Amino acid sequence: MKIRKGSFRLSNGVYFKSGYTIVGKKEEDGNFSGNFDLVLKNDLWGEKSYEKAECKMHREAISGAIAKSNLTRDDVDIMLAGDLLNELSASSLAARNFPTSFLGLYNACSTFGECVLVGSMLIDGGFADIVTCSTSSHFSSAERQYRYPLELGNQRTPTAQWTVTGAGACVLSKKKPNFEDNLVKSDQVIEDMNEKDRKFILDTAVARVKYEKNHVAKVVEGTIGRVVDLGIDDESNMGAAMAPAAADTIIRHLGDFDRKIDYYDAIFTGDLGRYGKELLEYILSKEGIDLSDTYMDTGASYFKPEQQTFQGGSGAGCISTVFNGYILSKLENGALNRILVVPTGALLNKDTPLQKETIPGIAHAFVVETEKIKEKYSKKQ
Amino acid sequence: MKIRKGSFRLSNGVYFKSGYTIVGKKEEDGNFSGNFDLVLKNDLWGEKSYEKAECKMHREAISGAIAKSNLTRDDVDIMLAGDLLNELSASSLAARNFPTSFLGLYNACSTFGECVLVGSMLIDGGFADIVTCSTSSHFSSAERQYRYPLELGNQRTPTAQWTVTGAGACVLSKKKPNFEDNLVKSDQVIEDMNEKDRKFILDTAVARVKYEKNHVAKVVEGTIGRVVDLGIDDESNMGAAMAPAAADTIIRHLGDFDRKIDYYDAIFTGDLGRYGKELLEYILSKEGIDLSDTYMDTGASYFKPEQQTFQGGSGAGCISTVFNGYILSKLENGALNRILVVPTGALLNKDTPLQKETIPGIAHAFVVETEKIKEKYSKKQ
Repeated sequence: MKIRKGSFRLSNGVYFKSGYTIVGKKEEDGNFSGNFDLVLKNDLWGEKSYEKAECKMHREAISGAIAKSNLTRDDVDIMLAGDLLNELSASSLAARNFPTSFLGLYNACSTFGECVLVGSMLIDGGFADIVTCSTSSHFSSAERQYRYPLELGNQRTPTAQWTVTGAGACVLSKKKPNFEDNLVKSDQVIEDMNEKDRKFILDTAVARVKYEKNHVAKVVEGTIGRVVDLGIDDESNMGAAMAPAAADTIIRHLGDFDRKIDYYDAIFTGDLGRYGKELLEYILSKEGIDLSDTYMDTGASYFKPEQQTFQGGSGAGCISTVFNGYILSKLENGALNRILVVPTGALLNKDTPLQKETIPGIAHAFVVETEKIKEKYSKKQ
Repeated sequence: MKIRKGSFRLSNGVYFKSGYTIVGKKEEDGNFSGNFDLVLKNDLWGEKSYEKAECKMHREAISGAIAKSNLTRDDVDIMLAGDLLNELSASSLAARNFPTSFLGLYNACSTFGECVLVGSMLIDGGFADIVTCSTSSHFSSAERQYRYPLELGNQRTPTAQWTVTGAGACVLSKKKPNFEDNLVKSDQVIEDMNEKDRKFILDTAVARVKYEKNHVAKVVEGTIGRVVDLGIDDESNMGAAMAPAAADTIIRHLGDFDRKIDYYDAIFTGDLGRYGKELLEYILSKEGIDLSDTYMDTGASYFKPEQQTFQGGSGAGCISTVFNGYILSKLENGALNRILVVPTGALLNKDTPLQKETIPGIAHAFVVETEKIKEKYSKKQ
């Protein structure tokens, strides 16, 4: 249902059936360590080029999300995907491995948000039951496409971000996922144990994931972003180009739904980076919106300071790996119950700055809420 | 409503409120001469680069379609747009001129089809009342991005197509457009005239457009394409790469809706070119589907033989300028009443053939039907 121009509410909500993530070694060494499904030993993953490796990551992330949902590729109605390579080549070439209708989407690093918005509207509108949403980026393919040959070993500017080598995919579903079988099984086993064994089992990852999945996450609302260009012309300072777009979307979103920012347990922006995050906080504070400590920028938080990424992570794989790994698990275990996710993108290519164009930004927002799987699990939080 | 995986029927249909097209001089000299809204005197249109000119064309095509619908840019809920420049730079930079939510879409030359499919589903699902769909391409920007510097004056291969310099946009609307005021006025004037004056007025373009708009066109159904790769690796032979995808979509479409090809008055494919058109006819004939003389490929038909484009036109602006100019007018004047439009695309970038990737194709299909504006006009056909 349309709320206002570009803002909508889903009639029933659309469920996240699964999320699957693949990242490189540097990403696993960062702050979200332990939240990814697959970590590559090296960035080429047995392929002859970084572009082919990104394509493989993208393909395997989609396959992984489908498998994790206990589905086959024949169950998927529509694939929505995008990436940063020219003409979406990672997604397009990945898509030829699936017998599935394909929609290529591109809004730079906010593409994952675009996929979730469009995918959930298509399901809620009755046009599909199951869709996949996926995006990827790769440090080395992005670096040599957008900036300089890797061999040049160019020095990076202090406002630069580090393109995340990662692919994230999720399966969106009209029907509420049925985790109950797993839950009951693991729960019975756990309940039957003595205290010591129980603690041991709960401390092991596999049981914990099954046990703690006491919520399902669903998209309930969204605000499609506008293109905002305040005249930033430094392609090494994407945070400055994207922060005004993020502010525009958040302000519009809160206005359209007539609510305050504290309606949300947490706000996650795409990949503004440390400087862009500060800019957004400053812009919003001028509008009386205090993000305070419920706010995380997935780019700024991706890497540790000693990893020398300067402003943090970026790329279409940045928020998609954090969302489908870290954030989704926080929702499913009940630590978060209502969040606003705002992936951000900078709309440039290699040539536009050379042709003296400024860099427009865009940011999409979607709201994720949780639903309890079984009432009794809520007591154990 | 989902019919089968990737195929859907709209509950009410979504109306084409207007179409607007801008093309270069060579395009106006072709077979669709007289069907375009604006013809450029030169391909740079006062800009400093072909890329900037394409962006301007894209922007002005959207503005033109909005104006032709008697709307303002504030009335548009969502803009859906794409183009062939890396990272959709023509659409993205055009979008910053509109205070409107923006979804960038990319499926190469089939992007216009993708825009119409997604746009009509979003309207039918209740998420928007008015959307714009637009795509563009430019011979000179495409040539130097995908192939060689223009200054090189490279010889073209016999299977090459000529990228159309053009931008086409349409306004899709939930509500049936109200052309009736214009119609009644022009009709009364015409009815009151003597035979000689009447003939003169009907022969002038303006009156004819008003008089002959006795139908409105609407999207009613669609089939989202799959990515098909039969191993074509010659980037100068896009027709061969796209024809199998077009065949796949048409066969799936007819199967999903359980109908024969003669259900349609006419079938229009995207930009297969002359050779690709023959290939599609051959593949479909093997499946017992005879396209015969109700079939036009907009690429193959775009240019005259003496214009030396070899296989014909291509590019994201090919079918979008033919559809929003020629085809839409044929629907509105009642010459066509139920058509299948199948934009086609080849999913490659400049680097993928160099990395020994083959070229996958994709094709989307949408069904357009007409509704009479007033019963009495049907008698005059």
